Amino acid sequence: MRVYVSENASLRELAEVIEVAQAQAGDPNLVSVEVFDGSLVVKISPVGHPLDTIAFEKLKGVERVEGQAVYSLASGAQARSVVQVPFAGASFGTEQFVVMAGPCAVEKEEDLFHVAREAKRLGARILRGGAFKPRTSPYSFQGLGLEGLELLRRVREEVGIGIVTEAMEPGTVEEVSQVADIVQVGSRNMQNYPLLKAVGRQSKPVLLKRGMSATLEEWLGAAEYILAEGNPNVILCERGIRTFSRHSRHTLDIGVIPAVRERSHLPIVVDPSHATGLSKRVPSMALAALAAGADGLLVEVHPNPNEALSDSFQSLNLEEFGELMEALGKVAGALGRVL
Amino acid sequence: MRVYVSENASLRELAEVIEVAQAQAGDPNLVSVEVFDGSLVVKISPVGHPLDTIAFEKLKGVERVEGQAVYSLASGAQARSVVQVPFAGASFGTEQFVVMAGPCAVEKEEDLFHVAREAKRLGARILRGGAFKPRTSPYSFQGLGLEGLELLRRVREEVGIGIVTEAMEPGTVEEVSQVADIVQVGSRNMQNYPLLKAVGRQSKPVLLKRGMSATLEEWLGAAEYILAEGNPNVILCERGIRTFSRHSRHTLDIGVIPAVRERSHLPIVVDPSHATGLSKRVPSMALAALAAGADGLLVEVHPNPNEALSDSFQSLNLEEFGELMEALGKVAGALGRVL
Amino acid sequence: MRVYVSENASLRELAEVIEVAQAQAGDPNLVSVEVFDGSLVVKISPVGHPLDTIAFEKLKGVERVEGQAVYSLASGAQARSVVQVPFAGASFGTEQFVVMAGPCAVEKEEDLFHVAREAKRLGARILRGGAFKPRTSPYSFQGLGLEGLELLRRVREEVGIGIVTEAMEPGTVEEVSQVADIVQVGSRNMQNYPLLKAVGRQSKPVLLKRGMSATLEEWLGAAEYILAEGNPNVILCERGIRTFSRHSRHTLDIGVIPAVRERSHLPIVVDPSHATGLSKRVPSMALAALAAGADGLLVEVHPNPNEALSDSFQSLNLEEFGELMEALGKVAGALGRVL
Amino acid sequence: MRVYVSENASLRELAEVIEVAQAQAGDPNLVSVEVFDGSLVVKISPVGHPLDTIAFEKLKGVERVEGQAVYSLASGAQARSVVQVPFAGASFGTEQFVVMAGPCAVEKEEDLFHVAREAKRLGARILRGGAFKPRTSPYSFQGLGLEGLELLRRVREEVGIGIVTEAMEPGTVEEVSQVADIVQVGSRNMQNYPLLKAVGRQSKPVLLKRGMSATLEEWLGAAEYILAEGNPNVILCERGIRTFSRHSRHTLDIGVIPAVRERSHLPIVVDPSHATGLSKRVPSMALAALAAGADGLLVEVHPNPNEALSDSFQSLNLEEFGELMEALGKVAGALGRVL
Repeated sequence: MRVYVSENASLRELAEVIEVAQAQAGDPNLVSVEVFDGSLVVKISPVGHPLDTIAFEKLKGVERVEGQAVYSLASGAQARSVVQVPFAGASFGTEQFVVMAGPCAVEKEEDLFHVAREAKRLGARILRGGAFKPRTSPYSFQGLGLEGLELLRRVREEVGIGIVTEAMEPGTVEEVSQVADIVQVGSRNMQNYPLLKAVGRQSKPVLLKRGMSATLEEWLGAAEYILAEGNPNVILCERGIRTFSRHSRHTLDIGVIPAVRERSHLPIVVDPSHATGLSKRVPSMALAALAAGADGLLVEVHPNPNEALSDSFQSLNLEEFGELMEALGKVAGALGRVL
Repeated sequence: MRVYVSENASLRELAEVIEVAQAQAGDPNLVSVEVFDGSLVVKISPVGHPLDTIAFEKLKGVERVEGQAVYSLASGAQARSVVQVPFAGASFGTEQFVVMAGPCAVEKEEDLFHVAREAKRLGARILRGGAFKPRTSPYSFQGLGLEGLELLRRVREEVGIGIVTEAMEPGTVEEVSQVADIVQVGSRNMQNYPLLKAVGRQSKPVLLKRGMSATLEEWLGAAEYILAEGNPNVILCERGIRTFSRHSRHTLDIGVIPAVRERSHLPIVVDPSHATGLSKRVPSMALAALAAGADGLLVEVHPNPNEALSDSFQSLNLEEFGELMEALGKVAGALGRVL
Repeated sequence: MRVYVSENASLRELAEVIEVAQAQAGDPNLVSVEVFDGSLVVKISPVGHPLDTIAFEKLKGVERVEGQAVYSLASGAQARSVVQVPFAGASFGTEQFVVMAGPCAVEKEEDLFHVAREAKRLGARILRGGAFKPRTSPYSFQGLGLEGLELLRRVREEVGIGIVTEAMEPGTVEEVSQVADIVQVGSRNMQNYPLLKAVGRQSKPVLLKRGMSATLEEWLGAAEYILAEGNPNVILCERGIRTFSRHSRHTLDIGVIPAVRERSHLPIVVDPSHATGLSKRVPSMALAALAAGADGLLVEVHPNPNEALSDSFQSLNLEEFGELMEALGKVAGALGRVL
Repeated sequence: MRVYVSENASLRELAEVIEVAQAQAGDPNLVSVEVFDGSLVVKISPVGHPLDTIAFEKLKGVERVEGQAVYSLASGAQARSVVQVPFAGASFGTEQFVVMAGPCAVEKEEDLFHVAREAKRLGARILRGGAFKPRTSPYSFQGLGLEGLELLRRVREEVGIGIVTEAMEPGTVEEVSQVADIVQVGSRNMQNYPLLKAVGRQSKPVLLKRGMSATLEEWLGAAEYILAEGNPNVILCERGIRTFSRHSRHTLDIGVIPAVRERSHLPIVVDPSHATGLSKRVPSMALAALAAGADGLLVEVHPNPNEALSDSFQSLNLEEFGELMEALGKVAGALGRVL
């Protein structure tokens, strides 16, 4: 946003414009004063919030205001958004810590029903499971596709658990949306803008995974594509970023949780399974996510991790998941949260 | 690939299997021996090459060979691939250093024709210019779309210069393919697998930009998606990676050029404009790309960079481009290359 | 470590060697089988643990064992080490979560005594404060030096709180060691080997901060320099790593906590102040560190953060610190820990 | 630097201050206008150049100027510095591309003399070779120490080639300085400030390697420590940075060469051996460094790389080095440079 200062403004009036700009931006580094075509312009960087342009127009020293805050929907100081999944009794953005659990990919019917029932019994409100799987190699297992979606539809109905599953291209968003309670956009597709627009045009909440090397600005920009199409229900999901570090598959950027809180009203959940790539490290990261203030968890659980066709090393078995839920429950209580 | 060693093989025979595996892998670190279900298995990691499974099956100590090399098409020690664009007289993967130049986005008709004529006169064989532009914010200029394609079609015909332009979703690949000599897949879409499959099914060469944090393995995996659909003409494009470094927009990973040479037969070009984000640094990086052995260049040129609607800071003006072409010509000569 | 397999070993015997190697290494990726000078060699990578060479020598198929595990002291499956600071009643590596708090640098005497008394009253066992400060610019405030040490000596005696403070060069280790309960080695000096040897030769525990881009292997290697000199009391400190991410000063690598637990017996604490660079993000990261299993905290507290000469943005004031201690106490209770 | 604007200045006068600040900073992003204690302040960030404070004091709207540019010695628009090593006929910062070659560590006397003679014959002006070696593990070969220095002294005298070798701690700087023509500070010690001060107090030129994750600002800050002690002869050395990328040991940040040129008057050389870690990739990176405008090269050469005690994979043998020198000579000619 650019605020043009009147030519005959006083320095005191300019100072006032700058102070309002700094207050609205939240961070003084986002405000700069530049000379543009001979005019003094107070510029607020787009890594921002919904800005109150009227507040500027009221000031004496202001000639005109140009542009708008880039992320007027995803960002801002307004009350935190609550994303509801009534079928599952889930409310993201409240005192509830919503646990979403299940296998990486939908595979055997029997296993899926088993894990869905157990996950629900242990306190998970949403079942995760991919029907469409983006894979680095074209020769790897790519998911069961529509057949997988049908299995998810049935497990949802019979077990009574919410479903989060991924849409990989605009052409299949509708099919996914008919089955899922939450439509997932994967890390690799965080900047697949046609896909973002397509999920923005359907009515189910969207879980937007952070790209492997996405900045907070790019992530909120991606959310904005969805919001701008009219879907207000976006849940951000941190799943580890790519760094030099080698001790785990990705580096869980736990610090992005308070950063998202400061910049955006959207809820944020954490996927400790993809972040670490190792099931034995999942519990400590899940507890850390809760302690850091996340709104929920997306965690891989498989009845028999050794048999999973993808990402077997990072799946908890049901016993481990049960222990995790118990530990989460205790810490949630200490923090005034509930599962 | 997994090579199962016979139960009654001798150690000498096992050693032979390992030696063949190491020779084929090129790098001993890619070979491991593991105990799998009670059998000894020599495993070759998928970061590889097309592997000669028959060579293994001939060995005495081998029981059976399982799986295939992951990247049998994008990788390997075979003769380097040459990607031809006859209309433009361009041959990627030869002694020719192919220069592709033009504006970031297609904007004004007059400017486009002007830059196309001048770029051609100065030695560029291909005009770059985006009709569809992926942008971090939904409110930024997104390109002229089909109207931009039509301008590219006309400039191609009237000026006689090849065209490289980006396709952003499967649904518009056909339109782009009808106009372009080379279809570009952008960094943000490097792992947009439905798009990769779509460009793999059309007949024009594909310029595959590296994702901002893509490993070499992931990049070749993306290329494999295209090749596996039957399109053998893939050109890799390094455009800078995301690192901690702040002195330029991205970090040009110049070292990936020899690494690609060792692992793949595909040609590789460099985009110094996006890598640096600053036009004054483009010439030194372009010369470095040539010296490091790249097959060509994708460089932003704009008749009046200050007026460009996107990425204005990184565009050379025509005079600067002319000087760069002259310097490239001299260094190419010293290296036994031609422009 | 290299285990040479006898020429006339059977495959079953080789398989046994590999299985023992994998079990000892903990991670199958660290084990490889190579042909070396015509012999089969099972190699265990040095990113390891103290390895039991005798276990190998007992196996039938083994000819001889060469080399030793690189980090025989810092690594390993032995019982977790406990580092005691009796004067402060602090035990790192137990159910106690040890809080170390105080200003970045020792500045005014009055402030130092005030913060020491308040920190102690609120539950901190150790006072942090730098007398020697490594600064990026030679023109920045470099600490009070020996005068600062003298202040620390007095505050320790009068207030009865432990002291952790940094030594920057071999030449001043002795002076620092006479005052400090814990001698700190800063991030920039993590691979300053002469300094590591010097702190390894004195008797006080050492707090070893992770370098900004140090891998776990390098960090444990640095610890090994200290341990190898005969000082067994090393406390590791994660303080954020350098990544592409921009939303905070560094990226807190919370996932290194379980990774350290798997690889090493040494205690690990977290510095959320340097990791985030912003005081308002410190509490959530401190809670995350506790939840993830850290042994303690190093946190900046200043009676009046706005007046601090260095790192003022990341210091909590005393009221904020009190609130943090209360929250930590509750979560510690839920996890079976105590402050 | 802070420029305080007079209370009764006009907007036009403020605009003038900003314009001068932007011109001096070189980059508008480094200039900000802030309200500080009720005054308007134009602030220039320290990532800068020696700034002309007098130019500001002359302006009408300015009340006073506070602070100084952080890097007044390492930075700036002044004429490029030339660092001379007369004994070796080497001039860094001129049209000469200075090649420094030799083994990673000083080992056998015979090998050292052999490589020194051959390197000189092939055009290298300086012999590299470490007597003190910083190693990740305390159990690795740590160099021959003083004995290695003595070998370097003799080879210098008998062969007539310059010497660059590393000093690892303040206590041995004097011994190193007596033998070396250039004293090297290694990557791990880039922020070992006591060491930087010590090499700043001796008279030989200093080769300052960039830390593995050092920003340009931190690197110039380290150089400033040396310059501030009175030693004006600092040569920067890029040796690869730490990134997510896995295809080579480090990522050669070739783009830092033009960035250093813009920000500093100091010469910069490149170490392609440590950057890539693989000898076969050294030639392309060496040529790229020359093409990008570097002032020289630090390259590992060993008469028999397979026998080297450290870093054997990255050393060229003498034949390969000869071929590289020939290629460098041709490209240097095309660029108006000489070896």
